[in-house]
Amino acid sequence: MDTKKKKTIIVFSGDLDKVMAAFVIANGAAAMDDDVTMFFTFWGLNTLRKPEKVKAKKSFLQGMFGRMMPRGAEKLGISKMNFGGMGASMMKIVMKQQNVTSLPELIQTAKEQGIKMIACTMSMDVMGIREEELIEGLEFAGVATYLGEADEANVNLFI
Amino acid sequence: MDTKKKKTIIVFSGDLDKVMAAFVIANGAAAMDDDVTMFFTFWGLNTLRKPEKVKAKKSFLQGMFGRMMPRGAEKLGISKMNFGGMGASMMKIVMKQQNVTSLPELIQTAKEQGIKMIACTMSMDVMGIREEELIEGLEFAGVATYLGEADEANVNLFI
Amino acid sequence: MDTKKKKTIIVFSGDLDKVMAAFVIANGAAAMDDDVTMFFTFWGLNTLRKPEKVKAKKSFLQGMFGRMMPRGAEKLGISKMNFGGMGASMMKIVMKQQNVTSLPELIQTAKEQGIKMIACTMSMDVMGIREEELIEGLEFAGVATYLGEADEANVNLFI
Repeated sequence: MDTKKKKTIIVFSGDLDKVMAAFVIANGAAAMDDDVTMFFTFWGLNTLRKPEKVKAKKSFLQGMFGRMMPRGAEKLGISKMNFGGMGASMMKIVMKQQNVTSLPELIQTAKEQGIKMIACTMSMDVMGIREEELIEGLEFAGVATYLGEADEANVNLFI
Repeated sequence: MDTKKKKTIIVFSGDLDKVMAAFVIANGAAAMDDDVTMFFTFWGLNTLRKPEKVKAKKSFLQGMFGRMMPRGAEKLGISKMNFGGMGASMMKIVMKQQNVTSLPELIQTAKEQGIKMIACTMSMDVMGIREEELIEGLEFAGVATYLGEADEANVNLFI
Repeated sequence: MDTKKKKTIIVFSGDLDKVMAAFVIANGAAAMDDDVTMFFTFWGLNTLRKPEKVKAKKSFLQGMFGRMMPRGAEKLGISKMNFGGMGASMMKIVMKQQNVTSLPELIQTAKEQGIKMIACTMSMDVMGIREEELIEGLEFAGVATYLGEADEANVNLFI
């Protein structure tokens, strides 16, 4: 009998502080030997973008969205007191001083621990984000897949 | 034995993107034959307002809140890059181009699928929103009702 | 056999409206004889700050964060239409007119009902918030403790 527990987290937010909270919980659960699935949707997808510009076919508006949204984990702002990125920079400095793991490191750990990261295909269409713009190692799926995973989990969060 | 599964979603946010996520999950679950209850509270109530002005007895401050908050699903802004509604309009255009179902259609589908939509009466008092200002087909209840539903559900989200 | 049910709520947000929602749900569940654990992290910690300035050793940036963040439940803003605190004040007036319990009263009730309130130690490091700056009656722990509690609960929310 499989007694492994499972957790799912929808990462809707693209704010550094919220995404960090999501990965801290996900990595904590994986360290306790739980199965963990993270489902990235809307702004949360920005966490998974490659830092460099990737050529991709987009409509005019999708291109505009793409240029205005942060490219990857290093570029996310914080949800309060961001002041054009200064707040995020300050928070990163304090985190370093306090030996708190940075978001890129948290993502790396999540991959190494085998956390399943799914990019929501419907949101990718709305945001105009293409597979080739996102980091390696992701799965691509929609709400039915999320619901299937959530049905097997004992903790399901929307962040 | 009833083997139907149940989901509850608290819709606290009144942002178009978040409310859409809530309805996509709710409709997805209902399509998989789950029972679904959505509990609208605080800004989430704006989703359910009728688009036209409805005469209702309010205190001065409640009236002010009422005039400043969006009237219904068509008027919601997005949680980031809204720029006074321009972001929301852009997102709606992209959604149409991508054949993504609009929020009013999602709400219609939710009704047709028998999703239970509850308006939080305590929040209605705080926001000064009256029953007659909200769309048809809702139930009205408080936190005890929510908790009763959540106890029967296997997935409970706060959006 | 213990048939008590359990709920956990992560209070990530420091917005008056969201924190109120968290306490209304928590107190409602406790009134129905559930065990309830609230886990305060990031901006949510501001809810638990003492209103007076407390001397505490901090780095320069931690001190800046500390001065810019609200000190306690009375000082929280609302997540929309706050207008530098005016929105929060208006909402408090309406709540009083409607006999809705205020946040300080909700926190008092939570304590009296034996709700477990945990301050997230990792967030305290990042925000530079010290134990002595927070109200009495809290526990201090990290993500592993949260996950242990969530595993025992049938409703887990992230607010």
